[in-house]
This record gives sequence, structure tokens and C-alpha cells, in this order.
Amino acid sequence: MNLKEQIRDVKDFPKAGIVFKDITTLLKNPEALNYAIDELYLCAKEAGVNKVVGIESRGFILGGAIAAKLGVGFVPVRKPGKLPAETLKETYSLEYGTDTIEIHKDAVSEGDKVLLHDDLLATGGTARAACNLIEKLGGKVAQVSFIIELNFLNGRKAIEGYDIRSLISYDSE
Amino acid sequence: MNLKEQIRDVKDFPKAGIVFKDITTLLKNPEALNYAIDELYLCAKEAGVNKVVGIESRGFILGGAIAAKLGVGFVPVRKPGKLPAETLKETYSLEYGTDTIEIHKDAVSEGDKVLLHDDLLATGGTARAACNLIEKLGGKVAQVSFIIELNFLNGRKAIEGYDIRSLISYDSE
Repeated sequence: MNLKEQIRDVKDFPKAGIVFKDITTLLKNPEALNYAIDELYLCAKEAGVNKVVGIESRGFILGGAIAAKLGVGFVPVRKPGKLPAETLKETYSLEYGTDTIEIHKDAVSEGDKVLLHDDLLATGGTARAACNLIEKLGGKVAQVSFIIELNFLNGRKAIEGYDIRSLISYDSE
Repeated sequence: MNLKEQIRDVKDFPKAGIVFKDITTLLKNPEALNYAIDELYLCAKEAGVNKVVGIESRGFILGGAIAAKLGVGFVPVRKPGKLPAETLKETYSLEYGTDTIEIHKDAVSEGDKVLLHDDLLATGGTARAACNLIEKLGGKVAQVSFIIELNFLNGRKAIEGYDIRSLISYDSE
């Protein structure tokens, strides 16, 4: 199945000059949704993961489904102030300013083999921060997977050394 | 399986005096996660839904998994400014002030039988607004499902007349 055909280009979103890769057209197509989940599930199975960590909020959509299919637990990484119990925070740089993400301290344990999942790999800043959180809790990042990878932003560089998988990639905008 | 045992009470979150029902302890338990998804999948199957609409962001976690299991598409309802294409908005009242949610105009079609899913039914304001969005696009809300229902907040009243399902309910804080 050609998943790329399921992605919609939205011009000038979120700001002028940017072509946004919209996954909602893929998500609402039953065949495409199931195909994407199956492919990422098979990748994760190969890596022998025992936990899925999904990044808020689009990473939750396939993250929960992949976890269920693998028969493992799901852990959300969220924006600050959203997780109710004790958290670990990680702050990372953006083009302008910084951003912070959090994980519950009891969400990952020593020895966990984790799949980190998000919908899109852009510069890799968020994924890198999430890998750091997982490792600080004693987990091993066994795989990092995305629906889309924007090659021209070199996100792989930020998470070099990990087993990185993506279903669709773009060499240019 | 007693799912209620999988929920963690977090006192004074998000503010003093509130006991927050934390689902992350359920999500990270593989058996509980799969059990919850299976139960909501069976409910939705019974209602004959052909689309799942999940509310940002905790409604995405099980919403995507239920859609995949049903073999139907998934549609996100999001906070303002997050969806890239043309949207329909709905504003609703909160205890103090208002809130707004959005859906893509092309996400639901005339005649769709929709499962609306979120993690928690509190006062029902968000669920009611999401039902309105689905119906304005010509969809039928065939079922509304939650992991948790806080009976003492009377959320059912706000979405009266719909087929409402929840896996866990609390009569008092």
C-alpha cells in the first residue's frame, strides 16, 4: 500500500511558507490506518519491546494501538503539568526558545525495552528528549518509530544510534 | 477483571481539593489495557459504528486502538489551531469561562455512524460539543464511550439520549 498517497499537504500551516504533512487523511481511511499500525507493530515485534511510549498528542493515536497489538503497556509522554503523579522533566531547544516534556517516574522500569513512537520526525528534538527520559528511568530505547520522516530536517542525526523506523519519508518540502 | 483497581487516585491535582483519577496506571498494565480496549470495541461493534472520533488528547490512546480493532477510520477532535485543514468549531461553557474544540470538515460524512470516545466523562461539556460537531457534519452519534464516568458530576445529563458506555464509574470522589 502506498501510504504517501494518504497524506495531505496543507500549505502555509502552521505559518506562511510551511507545507504541513497532514496525517488525518490517513487516519480516517480504515485500510491505511490498519496498514500503518500493522507495519509499525511488526517492526516493534522484531525489536522485542515490552513497552510503548507515545508522545503527546498525535503519538498517542497509533501508540496505543501498537501497544495493544503487541500485548504490552502504553506510557504517555506529555506537555508540562498534564501528568498527575511524580514526573521527570526534560527541556530541549527549539528554533526559537525551548520546550519541555514529562514522563511519570514510575512509568518505565530498569530493564524495560521501549518502543518510542511519534507521528512525525522533524528535527528530532522531542524524540531525543523522550529517549533521555526513558534512559534516565533505566529503560532501553529498543526502537524509535514514526509515520513520517522529513529527511531534509536531519532528525536522524539527533537520535543517532537508535533503531529508527518510519513508514513515509520526504526528501524535500 | 476489576479495572477500578488499576486507577490511581492523585490528591490535589490539578488543584487543591480535587482527587484526580489517573488512568496511566491502567494504560501501562498490558492486561488492563487490552481488557479495556476489548470491552469498548465490543460495545462499539454492537452499535455498528463505521468511524471513531477521539477527543484530544487522552481520547486518542484508546480511540485509535478501538478504530483499528473495528477496522474503521479514526478522526481526532482537537483544541483550536491544531488541525491544519478547514475546520468546524464548537465553543462550550466551563465552570469559569469557555473552551473550544475543532474537527476537520471533511472528517465525518452524511450517514456515518460514529463512536465518540474520550477517557473520562465529567460534566459532559466536551462530549456534548463533540456530538454537536459530528451531527453538524451529517454524522450520527451511534455511541459515546469512556473509560471512567464520574456519576456525581451528572455528565449523562449533558449527553442525554445517546448510547453512553463507561467501564468504571464513581458515585463520589
